[in-house]
Amino acid sequence: MQHHGDDLYNYPNIQINFSSNIWTHADLSLLKEHLSKRLDLIRNYPEPEASSLEKILAERLGISQEEILVTNGATDAIRLIANSFSERNQVTLHPTFSEYPEKKGTGVLRWICNPNNPTGHSRPPAELIPPHDSDDLHVIDQAYEAYTLAPMLTDRDIVNRPNCILLHSMTKKYCIPGLRLGYLTAHRDLIARLRRNMVPWSVNALAIEAGKFLVTNDIHVLPEMAWLLKETQRFRYLLNQIEGCEAQPTDTHFFLVRLSGHSARQVKEALAQRYGILVRDASTFKGIGPEYIRLATQLPEENDKLIRCLIQYLS
Amino acid sequence: MQHHGDDLYNYPNIQINFSSNIWTHADLSLLKEHLSKRLDLIRNYPEPEASSLEKILAERLGISQEEILVTNGATDAIRLIANSFSERNQVTLHPTFSEYPEKKGTGVLRWICNPNNPTGHSRPPAELIPPHDSDDLHVIDQAYEAYTLAPMLTDRDIVNRPNCILLHSMTKKYCIPGLRLGYLTAHRDLIARLRRNMVPWSVNALAIEAGKFLVTNDIHVLPEMAWLLKETQRFRYLLNQIEGCEAQPTDTHFFLVRLSGHSARQVKEALAQRYGILVRDASTFKGIGPEYIRLATQLPEENDKLIRCLIQYLS
Repeated sequence: MQHHGDDLYNYPNIQINFSSNIWTHADLSLLKEHLSKRLDLIRNYPEPEASSLEKILAERLGISQEEILVTNGATDAIRLIANSFSERNQVTLHPTFSEYPEKKGTGVLRWICNPNNPTGHSRPPAELIPPHDSDDLHVIDQAYEAYTLAPMLTDRDIVNRPNCILLHSMTKKYCIPGLRLGYLTAHRDLIARLRRNMVPWSVNALAIEAGKFLVTNDIHVLPEMAWLLKETQRFRYLLNQIEGCEAQPTDTHFFLVRLSGHSARQVKEALAQRYGILVRDASTFKGIGPEYIRLATQLPEENDKLIRCLIQYLS
Repeated sequence: MQHHGDDLYNYPNIQINFSSNIWTHADLSLLKEHLSKRLDLIRNYPEPEASSLEKILAERLGISQEEILVTNGATDAIRLIANSFSERNQVTLHPTFSEYPEKKGTGVLRWICNPNNPTGHSRPPAELIPPHDSDDLHVIDQAYEAYTLAPMLTDRDIVNRPNCILLHSMTKKYCIPGLRLGYLTAHRDLIARLRRNMVPWSVNALAIEAGKFLVTNDIHVLPEMAWLLKETQRFRYLLNQIEGCEAQPTDTHFFLVRLSGHSARQVKEALAQRYGILVRDASTFKGIGPEYIRLATQLPEENDKLIRCLIQYLS
């Protein structure tokens, strides 16, 4: 396995977590109440494939059930695609999410994260999909689609194309990373190929139940995105007032920050130990220098606290 | 994916389920009570690898943490091994569990299920492991170890050998197939190779929490095995009194039954529709004829009911 950023479990003392891109203040009470009544589901095998959830999602998205596949988180989808198209030359443009594979082969499989992690930059949908007659296969990871107002690809845009796969993360949209739930949509021929390589029962019964509950009841747990993105710009503005601190532009709620002359690893450790604040050491992403951290915007008072702590630490 | 047997979810009217080898009467109340208090775990990413559970298991098993790997169910372990040793000639002796891969290559990777599914036969531990200097790699799946009194391999038997992997299923021991939880033990060099191919966050947070709770508190949810195996022999005896019905010997609580002149598929459908009783159509296992079903012993009154229904159906 690669090095991974979300290591909250290593820091028992954290009060504010800027290191995960998943909104940490989601109200999950409705979902937890529902799951607490359905815990007996652990007693039986889940469906070998999460067909009942696929059916509900397909209806909502206006696509066919043959054009969707539910997975054990989006990371499981990435590995499934990599294994299913292992004969291809797999290309990743860094910096981006560490789990995309790189591999020499014939034909091109291109991994595209949009909005991109860790930069937060988004690209216009039309740029992301290859021409209809191209032999390239593009995998477009829209894990952060719920955290941006930039235009995104829709599933109906891509299911009629022979050479695109669109990844979605219910983990991120509904703030349930502990349960593991993602899905991908694509042309039915691509889905059929992926389905043949799928590990049965890989999606656990509580994740399937949660997905069905959340989608059927149209549950929203994220804050109003216009508000969160406005707060992100205020947060960036304040960070940029600090000498030697450069918060980069973003299309979502997370962004890179360069701390000139400081080691991201050391800054991270110091903030965790002294203030109980966790930030992401972004130097572990390929193609990023040692001075970069990544921050995900939190509540205004929490963002203000990080500003104060950073000023204190850097001075 | 292969055809799978556990299709309870397809039959909403089932009263007695003989088709799953997992004990259906387990008392999971302590675990459910614990999980109901820990549902907030869904909010955060699990550990990328289930290290905290690996540590607890290793201590209990008297092995090192470098000699164990926790997986998203034993099926995930099987796929991980198959992918990590994909250069090998993968050999499976049928009939057995459908998920073991077969593949041409160099060197031998042998898949051995003990006690074997669907036959219930066990083999002496010494027969299962290759000589210390053999280039063969043996994967011994002990998923049903908690359901037999036959001698089984221990983890300490195999972690010093270079060519054995032992699979375990917490799903089956603790009757929690909905959560997905398994582990494998092996020499640290083999574990290191498998760990490199592991999908991060593949084990969900509630499964990790359940595993820690069950092991730490030494929870038992299975019936006294001497009792269950004795009831199994009584059940077999009664089945063998029915004309044209031949219940085969077994070392565990499940076994094959030949119904001469009947299609297992049709018998299964009829029992489900008429009596709300689910049995396993064993004809979908490679190397088994069309007349075989597989049964897992249930409570005496439930076994008696199946006997009565079978007599009625077959006459």
